Amino acid sequence: MPHIPLEEHLPGITGLLEYRRDSAAPIRELTQFLLRGPNTLTTGERELIATVVSHGNQCRFCTAAHAATADALLGDSETSACVRTDLENAPVGEKTKALLLIAKLVQQGGKAVTADAVERARRAGATDLEIHDTVLIAALFCLYNRYVDGLATIAPAAPEFYAQLAGRLVQNGYNRLPQGYDHLRKP
Amino acid sequence: MPHIPLEEHLPGITGLLEYRRDSAAPIRELTQFLLRGPNTLTTGERELIATVVSHGNQCRFCTAAHAATADALLGDSETSACVRTDLENAPVGEKTKALLLIAKLVQQGGKAVTADAVERARRAGATDLEIHDTVLIAALFCLYNRYVDGLATIAPAAPEFYAQLAGRLVQNGYNRLPQGYDHLRKP
Repeated sequence: MPHIPLEEHLPGITGLLEYRRDSAAPIRELTQFLLRGPNTLTTGERELIATVVSHGNQCRFCTAAHAATADALLGDSETSACVRTDLENAPVGEKTKALLLIAKLVQQGGKAVTADAVERARRAGATDLEIHDTVLIAALFCLYNRYVDGLATIAPAAPEFYAQLAGRLVQNGYNRLPQGYDHLRKP
Repeated sequence: MPHIPLEEHLPGITGLLEYRRDSAAPIRELTQFLLRGPNTLTTGERELIATVVSHGNQCRFCTAAHAATADALLGDSETSACVRTDLENAPVGEKTKALLLIAKLVQQGGKAVTADAVERARRAGATDLEIHDTVLIAALFCLYNRYVDGLATIAPAAPEFYAQLAGRLVQNGYNRLPQGYDHLRKP
């Protein structure tokens, strides 16, 4: 049971963003900018960053939501599964691999990011801005994961829930829709 | 040396917020709202949350900056020192103590926040919104700490730097000033 009263039909982050819409607005804006804004990293790569960090933080809700979103954007479900548990053998390019490693290090803590890890990404063609954005996206999901689990929100078990949420995140991104999450309400 | 090229006169978070002003804008807005917006938690209490989380993450820059800010707001420097290392004996009320404990648990990870810790805060008079805001502020500083250290920014040694930065944060909050951080530039 969540530590504070949240709407029952809104699990995970969805209930928190509706609980306090005024703090939610800049969180949504930051996320929309970093994950959907113009960027040389693809939306799929950025969702993979969200996935590996959420997995590292053992945040069930965020891992399932962003893995489903990455799957929808990449057109397969093997990539998001493999980067979580066996990054070096994942079916992604060397630049993506090196950036996902940086993201995993950020999840452990800022000081865990080594000059070697950054150099590897740079050798694989990553730009300063891509390295910056990778660190900031990873840090943002350390916020999300702690927000979601620190208030003990519910993570639905049904994969269908995350597939539906992913469809929304692919189609509309992270902006609040006029109807909020009303479409998730059971009829 | 930072992992990406940042302006040398802008250490810690200050260089990052100028490096990418478009992502900085919603980060500033969120921080201003949570740390300076209308709230039943005092600005001093909120800076103490930032301090204990930054300390837990061993982020030198953020710990020094927010401890100096808390000191300026509270009018003493013992409180911010004591809550970091000996919370149970710190000169703060029971509600503040219980909320700072929740913040410390968020720093460890979302799942570390126990129902007992939340119940203790509630028994001491904390509202749902105060519990929510404590978790979100703590999560926000887990973002900041990873952003600052994940890109290996510089933390000045001189206490005077943090006293000056704290003066700015007390007077102007977290909004970007028209001149950015130009006042920190050595003449």
